[in-house]
Amino acid sequence: MGGIALTGHLKEQIAFIVEIDKLKTVLRRNLLLDGSRPENDAEHTWHMAFCAVLFHEYAAEKDKVDLLRVLKMILIHDLIEIYVGDTFAYDEAANIGKTEREREAAIKMYQKLPDGQGEDFLALWEEFEAMNTPDSRYAAAMDRMQAFIGNAHMDGHTWRMGSVNRAQVYKRMDMVRIGAPALWGYVEHTVEEHIKKGNIRL
Amino acid sequence: MGGIALTGHLKEQIAFIVEIDKLKTVLRRNLLLDGSRPENDAEHTWHMAFCAVLFHEYAAEKDKVDLLRVLKMILIHDLIEIYVGDTFAYDEAANIGKTEREREAAIKMYQKLPDGQGEDFLALWEEFEAMNTPDSRYAAAMDRMQAFIGNAHMDGHTWRMGSVNRAQVYKRMDMVRIGAPALWGYVEHTVEEHIKKGNIRL
Repeated sequence: MGGIALTGHLKEQIAFIVEIDKLKTVLRRNLLLDGSRPENDAEHTWHMAFCAVLFHEYAAEKDKVDLLRVLKMILIHDLIEIYVGDTFAYDEAANIGKTEREREAAIKMYQKLPDGQGEDFLALWEEFEAMNTPDSRYAAAMDRMQAFIGNAHMDGHTWRMGSVNRAQVYKRMDMVRIGAPALWGYVEHTVEEHIKKGNIRL
Repeated sequence: MGGIALTGHLKEQIAFIVEIDKLKTVLRRNLLLDGSRPENDAEHTWHMAFCAVLFHEYAAEKDKVDLLRVLKMILIHDLIEIYVGDTFAYDEAANIGKTEREREAAIKMYQKLPDGQGEDFLALWEEFEAMNTPDSRYAAAMDRMQAFIGNAHMDGHTWRMGSVNRAQVYKRMDMVRIGAPALWGYVEHTVEEHIKKGNIRL
């Protein structure tokens, strides 16, 4: 290239890499596991992708799960929160209208990419949200698992913060039963343990 | 499972997910692109994995690059820094003995995983370090690109911090020329621009 300006295609991609850096500043409710500070979306996304690799053996319909598609879905799944922020899973009021807000944000986000790449990412994000394929159900299960493992380790920090009850936790975690059923025993065992400890209300 | 303790296999995996949370506290030299604070390894890893997806079209020997293997390699590539810390790429003294320290850390880390999983991850990490396959060369190129794009955006922050010269930057970035040659023009153009600005020494 030597002195010649970047072409539009690569320029848009590099600008996108810069734009999504902001994911590192979108804070979640849960804490790092040393309790030092809230986790951000970029950290959550890396940790969730790691879960997807580590727990692949537990995926429902494992033969139909394309782990590469799952990882792509995970890497992009929270980008829209750069524009709309993280919505606490147990805040029912805040979740009203979430789908429409997030879809607008997704279109705004992926329009920045060249050619077919934006459309591909938008389609992957929509599949993730719909949770109606083996890939998206497994990805959604990993979204729940990453937060759940941390929460269990942190003495139920976000359950206590949200004053959450058993039915709410089981509803939230149901995607693990569907997308990674072999992990459901661990979830049930852990929920019941945290009910005994008073971290989850009956 | 209902009341029954976790089996060893899953228990080790969950303990591993908790252990690697520490990656979120390993700080790098570069800043977030809003300048607010240093980036950590978990954030870098997510951003680098995103680069690998976005820039796949530029990979050398694209037909031989297995993007799933590349993403696995990336997700694990910095875990050892939980035990040995991040070594500044331009600190030559600090890089002495790095390979041996990191290999010991890798063995300590991956021993915590069950069955063949630890061995698989260790082999992937060794391949990443050796940079002698199409997958590992492309992964290494993305390691350089993620930092480079941010650095260019931040007015050469880490180049200025390290008082780095042109030859050092080209040496560090050479893996982009090898692993993603179609991005080399952008690298050269950007380096020369930052020499003119005084952010990289001649």
